[in-house]
Amino acid sequence: MELKIDKEMPADAPVGVFDSGVGGLTVAREIMRQIPNEKIIYFGDTARVPYGSKSKETITKYSRQIVRFLQEQQVKAIVVACNTASAYALDEIEKELDIPMMGVVKPGAKAAVEVTKNGRIGVIGTEGTIGSHIYSTYINQIDPGIKVTGKACPLFVPLVEEGLWQDPVTDEIAVRYLSGLVESGIDTLILGCTHYPLIRSTLGRIVGKGVTLVNPAYETARELKELLEKKNLLNQKKQELGTERYCFYVSDMADKFQTFANSILTYGILSAKTIHIENY
Amino acid sequence: MELKIDKEMPADAPVGVFDSGVGGLTVAREIMRQIPNEKIIYFGDTARVPYGSKSKETITKYSRQIVRFLQEQQVKAIVVACNTASAYALDEIEKELDIPMMGVVKPGAKAAVEVTKNGRIGVIGTEGTIGSHIYSTYINQIDPGIKVTGKACPLFVPLVEEGLWQDPVTDEIAVRYLSGLVESGIDTLILGCTHYPLIRSTLGRIVGKGVTLVNPAYETARELKELLEKKNLLNQKKQELGTERYCFYVSDMADKFQTFANSILTYGILSAKTIHIENY
Repeated sequence: MELKIDKEMPADAPVGVFDSGVGGLTVAREIMRQIPNEKIIYFGDTARVPYGSKSKETITKYSRQIVRFLQEQQVKAIVVACNTASAYALDEIEKELDIPMMGVVKPGAKAAVEVTKNGRIGVIGTEGTIGSHIYSTYINQIDPGIKVTGKACPLFVPLVEEGLWQDPVTDEIAVRYLSGLVESGIDTLILGCTHYPLIRSTLGRIVGKGVTLVNPAYETARELKELLEKKNLLNQKKQELGTERYCFYVSDMADKFQTFANSILTYGILSAKTIHIENY
Repeated sequence: MELKIDKEMPADAPVGVFDSGVGGLTVAREIMRQIPNEKIIYFGDTARVPYGSKSKETITKYSRQIVRFLQEQQVKAIVVACNTASAYALDEIEKELDIPMMGVVKPGAKAAVEVTKNGRIGVIGTEGTIGSHIYSTYINQIDPGIKVTGKACPLFVPLVEEGLWQDPVTDEIAVRYLSGLVESGIDTLILGCTHYPLIRSTLGRIVGKGVTLVNPAYETARELKELLEKKNLLNQKKQELGTERYCFYVSDMADKFQTFANSILTYGILSAKTIHIENY
């Protein structure tokens, strides 16, 4: 366990962001856009990806190891950029920490409540996220009258990772997954998995204009900014581009990660380092 | 490291079979069919599945932990029922053991050489298996004149696990993956991933009658029988049905494993136990 170091943490320390693999890069991308002064240390657990089909115990164990690694890197705050880990591990691990920690689920839930007009919200995500009912729990804490319908979409992640972002097969699978949700009359759909923003245009076309898509990655970056402001931790120093600013670590297959990251990030990532996460 | 116990190992000891998850059950199924007297201890690494997109170092580390677990269960032989682990880890770990160990790749390669008439063999598998060129290495050791063409098919595993064994989407993806192989004039296709026998009929229809499918699971069970005979380790005692005969262990999500296993095995599996494989 780390010592209490909250007060000593300087505002120019990096923000730690982690995910089961590449999906969380959509969250990192939003942080880069919205608060460009922030340094980021990103960890993708590519040796143990995916998280979405694994148990709460396993995901909590994995997340705790990653948090230990990020604390060793002296991060000032931690963003769980993975819906499954946010659903399963965040509440438990947050209590053990002296730096702020936030996930993607609460910001996504909050935004959806603000957006919906008819009180019917759909959520799509991995089996883990949907099975945890975490979105409906948070949404109904804010407004118990809202009806939340969840749908697990296990094929979206492999389709995105195979690069089929605009493809008839992805269309066909999306129709199957989403038609029940659309028929149930939702006016808001939460993209409850960090891979999904990459097929946002396909999803939007299939649910139609009557349904507003909520991207928790966007909302998370917004809330992170507010959180850092409130804690006087917002970095005021303008950052130079380069490895110093954004550091990427993975547990396996650094080259493949780099290729994928470069396809979705505006800034080329110079390198990703492999670490042995099981030792943390 | 275990002590040398080869000579003491009784013929009624179980055979250890392992895979990254459920796929190796197609190999276990063939062993059950072809040598029904054998007891089996199966391990599926469901906490770290899939192996196909991970590195040689990672797969070797994971496989070594599983082998330690199986040795603790006093198995008389180990079958690596995973093409990726057979490709990456078998050669190295085999040297460290005093019990026979075999994978699925060599039996599959050998059978394909026997089957082909025009000397053109196709192999489909995960990125790891195909990238390792393991099938062409073994095939060309037997006959350097044979031309081997590999094709990674990363979406087949998630499609199988989603249950789309007979489905237009699987057809469409299979056409994309296989048409190049068919055009290249192969007359033999190795199903180089343990999930693929479950979509055998789809694959057979798409490659057409001119291409013979080789299922390494079948060949592996056949070679295991020969190996055990040669070593005087074939179990002569007829086994009763029940948990004693077939034991299943996983690293996560035992319930889900059980459901999937029951959908492909003739004998209902009574239970799957979860163990902490990282401690081995």
